[in-house]
Order: sequence, then structure tokens, then C-alpha cells
Amino acid sequence: MTWTIGEAVRRLLQLELDEARLGEPAAGGSAAGSDSLGNLGHPAAGGSAAGAGSAPLSAGADGLLAGDPQRTLTGVAVSFAASLDALERAGDVGANLLVAHEGLYFSHQADAAWTAASEAAQAKRRRIEASGIAVCRWHDGPHRLRPDVITAGLVRRLGWEDAVIRTLPEATIIRLPEPLSAAAAAELAKRRLGASGVRAAGDLAHPCRTVAVTVGYRGGGELAARLYEEHGAELLLAGEGPEWEAPEYVRDAVRLGRRIALLYVGHAASEQPGMELAAERIGRLLPGVPVHFLNERDGIQII
Amino acid sequence: MTWTIGEAVRRLLQLELDEARLGEPAAGGSAAGSDSLGNLGHPAAGGSAAGAGSAPLSAGADGLLAGDPQRTLTGVAVSFAASLDALERAGDVGANLLVAHEGLYFSHQADAAWTAASEAAQAKRRRIEASGIAVCRWHDGPHRLRPDVITAGLVRRLGWEDAVIRTLPEATIIRLPEPLSAAAAAELAKRRLGASGVRAAGDLAHPCRTVAVTVGYRGGGELAARLYEEHGAELLLAGEGPEWEAPEYVRDAVRLGRRIALLYVGHAASEQPGMELAAERIGRLLPGVPVHFLNERDGIQII
Repeated sequence: MTWTIGEAVRRLLQLELDEARLGEPAAGGSAAGSDSLGNLGHPAAGGSAAGAGSAPLSAGADGLLAGDPQRTLTGVAVSFAASLDALERAGDVGANLLVAHEGLYFSHQADAAWTAASEAAQAKRRRIEASGIAVCRWHDGPHRLRPDVITAGLVRRLGWEDAVIRTLPEATIIRLPEPLSAAAAAELAKRRLGASGVRAAGDLAHPCRTVAVTVGYRGGGELAARLYEEHGAELLLAGEGPEWEAPEYVRDAVRLGRRIALLYVGHAASEQPGMELAAERIGRLLPGVPVHFLNERDGIQII
Repeated sequence: MTWTIGEAVRRLLQLELDEARLGEPAAGGSAAGSDSLGNLGHPAAGGSAAGAGSAPLSAGADGLLAGDPQRTLTGVAVSFAASLDALERAGDVGANLLVAHEGLYFSHQADAAWTAASEAAQAKRRRIEASGIAVCRWHDGPHRLRPDVITAGLVRRLGWEDAVIRTLPEATIIRLPEPLSAAAAAELAKRRLGASGVRAAGDLAHPCRTVAVTVGYRGGGELAARLYEEHGAELLLAGEGPEWEAPEYVRDAVRLGRRIALLYVGHAASEQPGMELAAERIGRLLPGVPVHFLNERDGIQII
């Protein structure tokens, strides 16, 4: 089957709707309509309607950020960051669509005003245009699937998929068959995720059974307190979060007698395995299209 | 001279107004009036007026967070975090006022709803009440002084105070007499700041002469791009920032041929030296009062 880039992007944006529909009571045929975007509470279901088909090419943070939706798709490369490195490697494997979890211009907002004034951002824009490779962000979609594909990828990479006891929208609760100290979990995370170091707080020696796993920037204080206090987490493993929130919470909680710990494994390290899982999903969504996962080195190293 | 806790807190909140007045043309006597708070653009100049004196006990994020303003001040302890550890050490040195840069309940907002529901936050609140030690946050004040006391403390600790070429509100630009690689700067930062590790991005080998130093959570993409592009920074040393912004900017900029680097030394590591400088300032503001700086171990370690 031959796809255009625009059709492939719409297929990704549609996945979430399809899954939501599977979980709903049948409501009279329910052919896919663009109005279902609104029903699912997308923050902004706008976007260009260029190319064939009437469905929009963006929904929330997701969708086509660069490139011509009418071109024939030659292959898809999937990465965590929409970096120039990933773009070049996409070209090397013959893909003309890069699907990345993060945006192009160093900001969650695709249209942050400062990036329009940045020389480096504008030079990157010119490189992308010259490459002829289209870029699609796929961030909200995989996070909204149940279970969250990004978190599921991290849990799988850590080897804990058989120990899941609860799947929340923002975190997965693990009950380990054998207790593990936070220090040992940090070594496991470094080994499995290829992280050069981990930021750690709290009681690193206590043998933990209940672990909360979350990804990206979900390591803030409010969620952390809920995972420790309501879900009994002894260890929270997250991507990153503001250092004055959860780490300070953990330090004081330990002083108050709680035996808890926190590991920040890094944003990219926490979400890249999920994009590998997302790539498998994309392969099933786009039959006949070569899909390549790009295992990137983290842009950050700990020294 | 004997002070009450309330008088000491007001003296801190007043410092910024006094310094601003020094820099203004004389405007008819200008006795300190609480209305000047509004003139300086404080985000919220409210707060309790309990105790002697009519000036408020809080301004923006700053001011008395716990304790009785009418009690006689026995001594001041100064720290980065308002942790239980700092509180206990304040008591050990005979201080009944802890002046901390960060807030009590793991959030920039003093009244974040989730902290009211958190067992650990409430247990901390009870400990503080039982201790009889008052807590004053001093965050916005030292950041608004010119130069920013918190940044100045970090520059001094790094030994770069004689190499300052420009002082911006959010960063200080250094022109090093001898070039230094980012890798070497990371070692210097670890040694001088006691950090167990540093998150690094970009070209770590390039000898840098122009360094931008900033503190706390100022390591975001927008400021970083400005420091590299408008101020010619080759190296940016910051506390922390979201990993998908400045680190990804730096990675792509290096790919575009810029020889730049980024170091995140940690939020506490970047701001603790500034609170040491702030403690010296507090000592001069409160003659006769013992002022102790608490050099705390960072709540985060890199493993």
C-alpha cells in the first residue's frame, strides 16, 4: 500500500480516536469524523488541511511540523528528539518522515516567539527544508493511549512488565517480586537505559518492593507526593522534575521517618524506550512502510 | 540592639526598597512607606500585619512563612532550602529565625493546594510549630538586588568575580583571562560547589573565554539562546532547566558548527553560595544579631 506523508500523519492522529472508540458503547456506526477530536478533549484540534482528506494534520502538540503532506511516504524514522542528528539519520535509512516525541525548536510550544528570533533555530529550519524530510511530532497521542505507550516502553525496558499492579494515567505502579534498593535500581536504570548517571534523593539503601515509574517531566512534587502517600511507592523513578519539589519532599520525608527514594534518570532516557515501543505501533499502523527506530545517544551526559 | 522576628523580616523586605531608592533621583524626603512596594512592581504585596509596625510581613514569594513575629530574635540561620535538617541545625546554633531561599512545602507557591493534603507536608508543619523557630523566605529580594546577590555568590565561589564583563538581571557574563574547556569548568564547579556531578551538553573540549553564569531554574531555552547568540557565551553554567530546551538547543547548535556547551550544576549547588553572600548582607542589616550560614549537603546526589 502506498501512503502520502499527510495520510500517514492522519493515521497516527487517528489511532487514539480508534482506541477510545473501542472502549465506548457502540453509538450508531460511528464512522471516524473530525468532530470526534473535540469529543476527546484535544487542547487544540486545528492545523492545516492541505493535501488529500479532510481531517486536520495536527491535534494539540501533535502533527506535521515541517514538510509536504502530499509527497509519497518512502519510510518512517522514529526518535525521541527531533534533532538534526535524528533528521540526518532518517535520511540515511531512506525515510522521508521523522516521527519524534519532542518538538523541533527546543520548546514544548511549536510557535514560541523566541525561536523565531534565534539564529540557531532558523538555521535548523533551513536545514530541515533543504533535507526534504517531513517531521511529525507524536507526543500527546502515545501519552494518552491506555496504557501510556511511553511509560509502558520504560517499564518493559526495565524488565518490570510482569510486575505491574496498577496503571494510572501518569504513572505505573510496580510490585517487585524481590526487593531492590534505590541504589541498585539506579544501576539497573543506567545499564538498561544507557544513562551516564542518575540524580538520586532519599534513602538509597532501603529494600523497595513498591516502585512508581513515570516518564519525562512528570517528576514534580504534586504527583510524587501522591505516588508515595496514596499508592505506597517506596521508590519513584522519573525522567526529570524541578529540583526544589520532589527531591526536597523526599529529603524531608526521610527525616520524618519515611523510607523512600527518588531517581531522575533523565528525560530522554525515560522516554526513548517508549518511542521504540511507539515505533512498533507505527509499523502496524502503516502496513508496507519501512519503520526505523533511531536509538539516539542522550544529548546530556553526566560528568 | 534587640529585634523582634517581625522587625527583622521587615528589614529584609525593606532592603530592596532602600537600594532602589539609592539609585533613584531624590523625590522629596522619601520616607519608607508601604506604598513603595507597589511602585517596585511586587507581584503581591500582601501579608499579615500582625505585630508591631505597619509594613507587611510578606512581599511576593518572600516573607514570614511560619512563626510568631512578636518574639524576640535570638539569632538568624540562613540556608538554601527550608528543610527539616536546616531547621534542626538552626535550633542547634541558637537561632529562632531561619531565612531560606526556597519555600517550606516543596513548591514555589506557598499555598499550593496539594501540600495541604500531603501527610508529609503536614507532619513537617507540626515539627516547625513545635520547634518554635520562625521561617522567612528570602527569594525574590536577593534576586532583585543589583547585582543579583544569588548570582554574585556563585560567581565569587567560582573565583570569577574579577572577570565579570556584564551584569544582566538574569545572568552574569564572564570573560576568562585564560580559556577553559567546559569539561574543566565542570571539574571546577564540582570542586568549588561540592556537587557530586554535573549534567553537560555540547562541545566539552572547546576552550571557552566567554561564560554566562546563571542560577536556579534559569537554565531554560529562551534565556540560553539569548546568552549564546546575543552575548556571545561559549559556555553557559546554570542550576537546572527543562532537558528538552537548552540541552537540545546546544546539541543542534553544535551540529550547526557552533562551539558551545552547557553545564547544569544543580539548583541547590548554584544558589547556596549566593545564600552565603546573602547571610553576610543579613549580618550587616541586623547589627548585634548572630547570623549563621548553614552549609547544607545537597538533597540530590548523582550516582
